[in-house]
Amino acid sequence: MEQVKTVELISVGTELLLGNIVNTNAAWLAEQCAALGLSCFYQTVVGDNEERLSAVLKTALERSDVVILSGGLGPTADDLTKETTAKVMGRRLLMDEPSRRHIQEYFQKKSMEIPENNWKQALIPENALAIENENGTAPGILLEEEKHIVILLPGPPNELLPMFTQRIAPYLASKTGGTICSRTIKICGIGESRVETIIKDIMQTQTNPTIAPYAKNGEVHLRLTAQAESKEQAEVMIQPMLEELQQRFGENIYTVQEEITLEQAVYHLLLEKEWSVCTAESCTGGMLAGRLINVPGVSQVFKSGYVTYSNQAKEEILGVEKELLETYGAVSSQTAEAMARGAAKTAGTQVAVAVTGIAGPDGGTEEKPVGLVYISCYCQGKVRTEKFQFKGSRAKVREASVASALILLRQCIR
Amino acid sequence: MEQVKTVELISVGTELLLGNIVNTNAAWLAEQCAALGLSCFYQTVVGDNEERLSAVLKTALERSDVVILSGGLGPTADDLTKETTAKVMGRRLLMDEPSRRHIQEYFQKKSMEIPENNWKQALIPENALAIENENGTAPGILLEEEKHIVILLPGPPNELLPMFTQRIAPYLASKTGGTICSRTIKICGIGESRVETIIKDIMQTQTNPTIAPYAKNGEVHLRLTAQAESKEQAEVMIQPMLEELQQRFGENIYTVQEEITLEQAVYHLLLEKEWSVCTAESCTGGMLAGRLINVPGVSQVFKSGYVTYSNQAKEEILGVEKELLETYGAVSSQTAEAMARGAAKTAGTQVAVAVTGIAGPDGGTEEKPVGLVYISCYCQGKVRTEKFQFKGSRAKVREASVASALILLRQCIR
Repeated sequence: MEQVKTVELISVGTELLLGNIVNTNAAWLAEQCAALGLSCFYQTVVGDNEERLSAVLKTALERSDVVILSGGLGPTADDLTKETTAKVMGRRLLMDEPSRRHIQEYFQKKSMEIPENNWKQALIPENALAIENENGTAPGILLEEEKHIVILLPGPPNELLPMFTQRIAPYLASKTGGTICSRTIKICGIGESRVETIIKDIMQTQTNPTIAPYAKNGEVHLRLTAQAESKEQAEVMIQPMLEELQQRFGENIYTVQEEITLEQAVYHLLLEKEWSVCTAESCTGGMLAGRLINVPGVSQVFKSGYVTYSNQAKEEILGVEKELLETYGAVSSQTAEAMARGAAKTAGTQVAVAVTGIAGPDGGTEEKPVGLVYISCYCQGKVRTEKFQFKGSRAKVREASVASALILLRQCIR
Repeated sequence: MEQVKTVELISVGTELLLGNIVNTNAAWLAEQCAALGLSCFYQTVVGDNEERLSAVLKTALERSDVVILSGGLGPTADDLTKETTAKVMGRRLLMDEPSRRHIQEYFQKKSMEIPENNWKQALIPENALAIENENGTAPGILLEEEKHIVILLPGPPNELLPMFTQRIAPYLASKTGGTICSRTIKICGIGESRVETIIKDIMQTQTNPTIAPYAKNGEVHLRLTAQAESKEQAEVMIQPMLEELQQRFGENIYTVQEEITLEQAVYHLLLEKEWSVCTAESCTGGMLAGRLINVPGVSQVFKSGYVTYSNQAKEEILGVEKELLETYGAVSSQTAEAMARGAAKTAGTQVAVAVTGIAGPDGGTEEKPVGLVYISCYCQGKVRTEKFQFKGSRAKVREASVASALILLRQCIR
């Protein structure tokens, strides 16, 4: 096939139909295909059933240039994606020598006997290309005809993702005439509706590039996408909108790089200032430290953290005074501040952030309801404490607290 | 329609086709429908496009009794699920008075003016039932014909979930002849392939009830499902298989209750023994404490935890000897044990669990590669330390470490 424009995804698996697993493969593949400039108009989920899969595949071939099937390449009799595809496309299945050898080596490496079933995975439709699977025994399959490209991928994400990225994406890129380029602006410290108001005029007139906001746990990401003939051209088209948005959101933007997380942005700020940080957590109980330690190399700025869930722990570890706890309570701006100061002193860091709150579902009162959280940030002698009233489950309150703590931390360091 | 057997899901939305969001609605609806005894053979994702949506809906009506569409009920011109459905089903759209009032009240409550667009949400297909939306302005729609039931639900999960649970599920239950009952057995401490070997004979002969294993972050869940005319009958059918599995897996089963998590099981064991626990974490950096604190009421058994990322923190907070760290290194069974002992002493708890390892991506050596993790559990004077070699990314290694620490903790307390 010379040039392809449309792609369709078929996910095969009973566990998807039963809702036992969420179809993350489809979302990931869709995003990758969009980035390659392919339009995806349909995604279908169907079970491991020859008749139904065959009907779905035929429909897809009628309306899309590229059809990507995932799942159902396993060794058991249930798995029939390859067999069904071969039948629909009118191809025989032949033993593929490299795939056979790969299966043999895979099991040898694990010092395991090869189950009889697995040999079936080395059968490949005639004139199709077998694609080596680095993380499993089922090879991918690439089948090009005059009017279609059909691609079969294994279902497990740890097999599908690298195979698509390394082998399928470059192949498809060579088959699409245009390309899409995306940039992400990550904003923190202002809510989604406020962000939408600020960009309303752009939203209303957008065509190419487009702009789309996504709210995500205390942050709002703006995704700019331009379509053009070349990547360079698309990048040039995005630039003016990117600059306009940088002006509008100013320091609320913590990064314009897709791969940078909020905790990484905080880490880079600390590195710049040559400061170290420590955490003192009550209701978030280690989650905030856990997020900071997501960052590889964080040991340069993070040495220790404290989970002080009980009042006694707050006294003994952070030196919060018993009187203060009795007067204002564990969930108060006074305690939050004392925790932050105490943590910085105990750990000997320039910066410390403390969280204390009522995550629920119990323990709330009229005066101090569930979701009330105080976050305090100590930074080189100065302290800033903020009060939050979050909504939702225990998990939601804790997650929102962690995000807010990172945002406050970023503001104070700056 | 008298009795329904099959259901099909159509998710409408460009953001799904672009892979910007994962289709969690489909997984959730599929699971709910399965529990109601409905078979789901197809799920489709299609964009906000009249022609394509209309084709997909027609296909669905040809092959399924119930069609559930979600998304595309918003106020903008893009949203055309309702309009397209009405056209396909040959029905006019009429203003629905209660829906109109609901929209009015919804905006009044928020002291907002009603945007002109929103009135369109009160239009309902002739002879269809509007279903009040407690969390938004778009009503759901229920359309029953002689051969089909078509249900339209709003896309946002916080609107879709309660509407389905409260209004659609009871309605569908009245239309299905049978019901399904599920039980989950949660197993820890043995791997997926070992679990599969143990249940191989049951797997091969299963019909009703069925058994399906799911591996999930260090645990394996077995889901038993029976189909019968009544819930009681289905429960009776499951019982013998449940007992057989309890015998086979013995104490590796930590619960047979769907809603109990591993951290909750550990919490209950600690409560029983009247012991308290503390954590000392290096590479997991607070995530283990964070998981324990997922449990509401955990303050009864958890008072404090330590994130000791640097060697200095291990020495100062946990009293790990400098010599020991220098001789064996921070990632060693000796350090893990000293961390656990030190944490129990510092916090004054009966139980302590310590984690130290190399989460990567850097910092690995030939002798101590990335993924090497030592976990030590101190329990009433006794210590048990285990060595693990995990695979995958930094996040994967840390998650696997947390799961293994909880499992070791459970074993030691027992």
